[in-house]
Amino acid sequence: MGDLWAGVEAEAARRLLRGAVGLFAAKGYGGASTREIAESAGMSPAAMYVHFATKAELLYRIVGTVHEAAHAAVAEVGNTTVVERVRAMVFALAAFHAAHQQAARVTQNELAALDSERWGVIRDLRDATEGLFLRQVELGVRAGVFDVADVPGTTRAIVSMCVDVARWYSPAGPRTPDEIGALYAHLAMRMLAVH
Amino acid sequence: MGDLWAGVEAEAARRLLRGAVGLFAAKGYGGASTREIAESAGMSPAAMYVHFATKAELLYRIVGTVHEAAHAAVAEVGNTTVVERVRAMVFALAAFHAAHQQAARVTQNELAALDSERWGVIRDLRDATEGLFLRQVELGVRAGVFDVADVPGTTRAIVSMCVDVARWYSPAGPRTPDEIGALYAHLAMRMLAVH
Repeated sequence: MGDLWAGVEAEAARRLLRGAVGLFAAKGYGGASTREIAESAGMSPAAMYVHFATKAELLYRIVGTVHEAAHAAVAEVGNTTVVERVRAMVFALAAFHAAHQQAARVTQNELAALDSERWGVIRDLRDATEGLFLRQVELGVRAGVFDVADVPGTTRAIVSMCVDVARWYSPAGPRTPDEIGALYAHLAMRMLAVH
Repeated sequence: MGDLWAGVEAEAARRLLRGAVGLFAAKGYGGASTREIAESAGMSPAAMYVHFATKAELLYRIVGTVHEAAHAAVAEVGNTTVVERVRAMVFALAAFHAAHQQAARVTQNELAALDSERWGVIRDLRDATEGLFLRQVELGVRAGVFDVADVPGTTRAIVSMCVDVARWYSPAGPRTPDEIGALYAHLAMRMLAVH
């Protein structure tokens, strides 16, 4: 799964993002101060502003990175049969939300803190990710390999189940992210009644 | 599904709880002030303190009520076959999280704001609700009516899928809470491979 922040150039910015995720997880976005976030990265608030002008900017970078990385994990699934593609997409989405549990949980909990323009960008990304699943499920139903009466409702339930892994998953628990991915891919195949 | 706050004696306390849910949903627990909550109920902060000594007290009442009501909805399912019991329990939990979407979403998002003693009480309630499902799935597997390799993992996925309805459900969307309940009961039966 790799490091969620590997694409962020400045090492100080990566420290700030990691610190902010930990503080938002512990205290909520409203409860964590910019001073604490800067301190968690060993910086002064003034040094932080070079990288992120506001706390809202930091949250938006976290939320945006989580959504882009989740979308990429699903989109990069190779071109194989519909069944194998959906299986691999569910594996990827569930394993992602286990591997990046804390950042994904903060993202889910703090969406209401985004202004409406930023929320619009994120909503489009979410719709695009769900759209990748929807198209494959529709293809599979048309090809007769899935048996699904309510295509949008069932697709939403599968995506929702994967995303919700971030709400309860703990790296201290009994399953690795890949084991979660494998279990959820199996359950999704059952939900789609693969013949 | 009825009114979540029907069991709260004082009408002013019910107004405060409804106002707090709306404000926590819009601004987060950290972002909503006690003054705003009191105003949303048409009261002064001093009048609010008669009912809830602190904002933390209000949040705990919301979180506690949601967990108790969800548990009761699942626990009150009648004594029938294992298959029908699990079907009805999934229906109840999914429909509950649609019907009480906003209060349940606030509950999920703000758990980190509870102190450790209160979180302990809530965690026990959550475990008890999941335990109701776990016992039935185990019974069904032993009776040969469910075909499940990973009983705790599959049970957790079913409960998680129902709880996550509160993250995305909108009463303005195409499905009623009962329609969500019926769809999720059907999907859970597939996940358990009912013979």
